[in-house]
Amino acid sequence: MNKFFKLKLSILLLISIIISGLIGSALTTFFFRNQLMTTQKNKEAVVKLIDEVWSKGNLQIVDQLIAPQYTIRHDPGDQWEGKTLDLATYKERVRMSRHVFPDQKFYIEDIVANDDKVAISWHFTGTPKGNIPGLPATNKTVSVSGLTIYYFSGDKIIGHWQIVDRLGFLGQLDMQKGRPKVIK
Amino acid sequence: MNKFFKLKLSILLLISIIISGLIGSALTTFFFRNQLMTTQKNKEAVVKLIDEVWSKGNLQIVDQLIAPQYTIRHDPGDQWEGKTLDLATYKERVRMSRHVFPDQKFYIEDIVANDDKVAISWHFTGTPKGNIPGLPATNKTVSVSGLTIYYFSGDKIIGHWQIVDRLGFLGQLDMQKGRPKVIK
Repeated sequence: MNKFFKLKLSILLLISIIISGLIGSALTTFFFRNQLMTTQKNKEAVVKLIDEVWSKGNLQIVDQLIAPQYTIRHDPGDQWEGKTLDLATYKERVRMSRHVFPDQKFYIEDIVANDDKVAISWHFTGTPKGNIPGLPATNKTVSVSGLTIYYFSGDKIIGHWQIVDRLGFLGQLDMQKGRPKVIK
Repeated sequence: MNKFFKLKLSILLLISIIISGLIGSALTTFFFRNQLMTTQKNKEAVVKLIDEVWSKGNLQIVDQLIAPQYTIRHDPGDQWEGKTLDLATYKERVRMSRHVFPDQKFYIEDIVANDDKVAISWHFTGTPKGNIPGLPATNKTVSVSGLTIYYFSGDKIIGHWQIVDRLGFLGQLDMQKGRPKVIK
């Protein structure tokens, strides 16, 4: 073998080593990235649900985000707890909440997510408009905090498990006679 | 070049390609695994905290799990809300809870974790032993559910953000006069 051939051979070997290393790395990255990107997409879907649907009342995008069967796995005090809702009922749920508190806003405090789950801690503010029996208009904005885990199947949210600080909430509302009056 | 040399060369090339591919993949996996393993360790620490410390009262392991400065970021109704606790005060917190409910158990429903955060949904059961003014012994086991996000720094838990369904809890307790009596 002459020197020139040896050099060519060394270069070929070096290039093969570098390329294979990169390919191995790229394939592995692709595998992990896919997982991370799904989690990222799920987070974005939850942020959109909270900002657009619950805080702004944009019901047009509910079908993009919510699965046709949405289960309220756990949500003490919620009238649909344990039930599976269709899309029309999910929209009704948002509409009812916004009927009581037309200016309602949810602020996401923090997000934790992995695989098909997104947990958020949040604060709510809203002013009751007095259109619900037993809940008079006070022009006083109330606030409440909560934590929710949202569950995904594919790119749709299929349900939640939630705790709202109902006691703190009630303490701020000027409940009428016959309803519990709790001082925070 | 003879045939034997060509064969040796091809084998050398093939081996280099395979080994570099594997090394590239391994390095990348190592990078991602490190992240995943931290999350896994954090999850295990939270499970240990709940099972051993809160459900069994094993205070010896608090120092392994909890940072010397532990902040209760948000926890409506908790007497230490907003405060930063030292280890002695953290242990006192567990002791007080177990004094009211000596048989208390926490059951983790689900875990969501990424980076330095672990969120858990949980159920609590406990029987008040009547050693707290205003909270008589009923021999009735009460249950309550909640959601908590635990925050880590290194391998220690540095705080939490929590919502407990206090209203559901109060509804089950036979509160004495002068205390709020709320029917669930």
